[in-house]
Amino acid sequence: MAKVLTSREESYAQWYNDLVIKADLAENSAVRGCMVIKPYGYAIWEKMQRALDDMFKETGHQNAYFPLFIPKSFFSKEAAHVDGFAKECAVVTHYRLKNDPDGKGVVVDPDAKLEEELIVRPTSETIIWSTYKNWIQSYRDLPLLINQWANVVRWEMRTRLFLRTAEFLWQEGHTAHATQAEAIQETETMLGVYAKFAEEWMAMPVVQGYKSANERFAGALETMTIEALMQDGKALQSGTSHFLGQNFAKAFDVTFANKEGKLEYVWATSWGVSTRLMGALVMAHSDDNGLVLPPKLAPIQVVIVPIYKKAEELERIDEVVNGLVAKLKALGISVKYDNDDNRKPGWKFAEYELKGVPVRLAIGPRDLENGTFEVARRDTMAKETMPLEGLENKIQALLDDIQASIYKKAFDFRTSKTTKVDDYDEFKRLLDEKGGFFLCHWDGTPETEELIKNETKATIRCIPLDAPDEAGQCMVSGKPSSKRVLFARSY
Amino acid sequence: MAKVLTSREESYAQWYNDLVIKADLAENSAVRGCMVIKPYGYAIWEKMQRALDDMFKETGHQNAYFPLFIPKSFFSKEAAHVDGFAKECAVVTHYRLKNDPDGKGVVVDPDAKLEEELIVRPTSETIIWSTYKNWIQSYRDLPLLINQWANVVRWEMRTRLFLRTAEFLWQEGHTAHATQAEAIQETETMLGVYAKFAEEWMAMPVVQGYKSANERFAGALETMTIEALMQDGKALQSGTSHFLGQNFAKAFDVTFANKEGKLEYVWATSWGVSTRLMGALVMAHSDDNGLVLPPKLAPIQVVIVPIYKKAEELERIDEVVNGLVAKLKALGISVKYDNDDNRKPGWKFAEYELKGVPVRLAIGPRDLENGTFEVARRDTMAKETMPLEGLENKIQALLDDIQASIYKKAFDFRTSKTTKVDDYDEFKRLLDEKGGFFLCHWDGTPETEELIKNETKATIRCIPLDAPDEAGQCMVSGKPSSKRVLFARSY
Repeated sequence: MAKVLTSREESYAQWYNDLVIKADLAENSAVRGCMVIKPYGYAIWEKMQRALDDMFKETGHQNAYFPLFIPKSFFSKEAAHVDGFAKECAVVTHYRLKNDPDGKGVVVDPDAKLEEELIVRPTSETIIWSTYKNWIQSYRDLPLLINQWANVVRWEMRTRLFLRTAEFLWQEGHTAHATQAEAIQETETMLGVYAKFAEEWMAMPVVQGYKSANERFAGALETMTIEALMQDGKALQSGTSHFLGQNFAKAFDVTFANKEGKLEYVWATSWGVSTRLMGALVMAHSDDNGLVLPPKLAPIQVVIVPIYKKAEELERIDEVVNGLVAKLKALGISVKYDNDDNRKPGWKFAEYELKGVPVRLAIGPRDLENGTFEVARRDTMAKETMPLEGLENKIQALLDDIQASIYKKAFDFRTSKTTKVDDYDEFKRLLDEKGGFFLCHWDGTPETEELIKNETKATIRCIPLDAPDEAGQCMVSGKPSSKRVLFARSY
Repeated sequence: MAKVLTSREESYAQWYNDLVIKADLAENSAVRGCMVIKPYGYAIWEKMQRALDDMFKETGHQNAYFPLFIPKSFFSKEAAHVDGFAKECAVVTHYRLKNDPDGKGVVVDPDAKLEEELIVRPTSETIIWSTYKNWIQSYRDLPLLINQWANVVRWEMRTRLFLRTAEFLWQEGHTAHATQAEAIQETETMLGVYAKFAEEWMAMPVVQGYKSANERFAGALETMTIEALMQDGKALQSGTSHFLGQNFAKAFDVTFANKEGKLEYVWATSWGVSTRLMGALVMAHSDDNGLVLPPKLAPIQVVIVPIYKKAEELERIDEVVNGLVAKLKALGISVKYDNDDNRKPGWKFAEYELKGVPVRLAIGPRDLENGTFEVARRDTMAKETMPLEGLENKIQALLDDIQASIYKKAFDFRTSKTTKVDDYDEFKRLLDEKGGFFLCHWDGTPETEELIKNETKATIRCIPLDAPDEAGQCMVSGKPSSKRVLFARSY
């Protein structure tokens, strides 16, 4: 079978686009910048959602739903938010169509103009804090720990499936607290939830840290982030958690009576991950044959392909396989038996490799005689013949092993691509030659950060939480620095 | 404690609105016509979603996601759709804001006008069928069984929480088939899924049937519906399933090569239920004390309230209750132990009645001595003292009994409010005096239907699937009729 994907070496960007489309994850739609998430891609997203939602609920959060539209004036209420936030938004100005007087379809009814334009939410801080004003009166109403699963729109000029689209799906947590300390704790807790999800479910190691002031969310006092390394050596910001201070409480006049009956402004956080994680998942693990999915997020964990010539052979295979399928399902493993007669085994093998099914079993007449299956794992492409007896338990262990191996591979890759550099010229050279993460001393000024960005396209991804104290000198200005920060080119 | 709700007798509409707000289900937002679904309401909706989604998947459907926006021209492609569908839509005309030159917040950037306006989806047939064109080539690509969970917007002038809002949440199934028979079968299957969900989960009996031609979805050849009866004697359309024929396939040129290699147009269905079901749930069962929730959809199934004076009493109660909570959770029962010291038991009793928690347990010092609990069921308000020994199993059985009892109560109410009428004057009299469902002969003409609607505000809710053949005469025109149809005033 001909290769369906451009190789990563040939063009990483083209490989990514090919893979997202050929593996039936998503495609571009008739609406500029908006994607269609196809059933196979959506099934992965649903698994992500379920795992994250369970983690949010375990940490005490509840879901709710706020309006899609935000009155234009709300954006002006928090000064940093309106200044810093991109103004590329979808603007609703009218509320009615009418038949075209010329008989050609429909036109916008000029009589149905809104008094105040509505913005399709690019993020929901403003509409939510305008609501919280009515929900919060006393310290007894706090903390308020709420999450929303929703679609949002940011009008992007250059879009890439999952990585940057005008409309995307996400969750946004918005919490309200009585004290600064509690809000900061929440910001950290939720970053930890994201890191745990990335590492344990997506098998994707991440660096947790603080954004520099330049890279903060508009309206936040601190933005925390998880940063992952893609196979092309670029970073991908995978989730952010913001400590918003009292900015939105002040903008929307949200106060509470403390235990002494005195009014105070409420402290806020917000945090989100989006369908961008789908892009991270693809780019972190997949290869030139297609997707490599961690078993915990794979819609199909095991596929079984029969190899036969005669109908009677298939009948005997069906019998053996049906028994195995029942045992696998009893262990909670999702399994597909593909005995479709219209496709050859070779086509099926390539198809399930492309789709990233972690384990493939094949069974032919000789296996039938010997009581065996051929077991192939997608991540290493290794094959082994295993007896049917007790196979379900071996497969369960194999899925665990694949989950761990994928993580280890990504972790080792990141280790090999993380470089400490002290000299700016060497930094520039290695950025081009090697790529990856760079741990460097920085003088802490926005000016130096900006200079490096302009000269190299590398940015400070974060000031890592686990960066040890280490006296050094900024690689650009030579000024003193107390710890290394993480630089990379990024998506 | 003062009554917090207007009684149903005083004003059913006010009772409904009070209840939705006081029970923390939803509230109006700062955006006209758009609601905020609060955590407690959203938790019920999540349970509905989970149950429906499982049923969709059991019947072979997959989820996907299509764009929020639809190019205006798409609406003109299916003639009946554009003529019949309400034109009250949110229209996006611009894609950028800019700082007001006068320094007063932000204004719409006139330079960022879209070439073609985008409509916020009121329903997704057009964008989805424009996509299916690329997904369907051969009979092997069929059937295509896809569902989407999404928000939609229809600009309503008069809104009521859950029942009629500008933005609402729903699911919309869109399926493609090779034959008419298969598409009709799908339309019926999904109506059956809705009926099963309404009856088994919502404990709400429904009449399944066909809409008359007047009431069909714009672009459908047949619309099937489930109709439920509310306590005020009005009908509420709770879900619809449409057989769309080849209309959308023709509008978007979606053909497939059949087994003989000949091109044919694809056959279509669509079907949906929305957050309107939340309104149905409230109005079907609740009373003047608050919500009455069927246990299968109750976010909290059992609440336990301690009654004590001294801290040491509470300690001993805590110990007994914690053991019971563990046993209930092991049975999969969601339970809340409310030992908050800030609220009195009487306040808690009223609060959980308002919230519709199906079973309330109370335990005081005397219960502690006797090894008993007071068990109260929300639906009948009956109380009983039960021994701790084996209580978890009795509660499980009680929850099943409440689920069945709520259904039976609603079923008996509907039976008592379903009247066969043959005389039009009597029909008009009973509509006012008794309300409810009316089974009447109708001559099958849109004119008679329209006349009845104009004179009485009653409409044909459906032509029931189970209506027996029965020769009769239309109650208005006297013309022959072969079966009775279902009339009611409705939401």
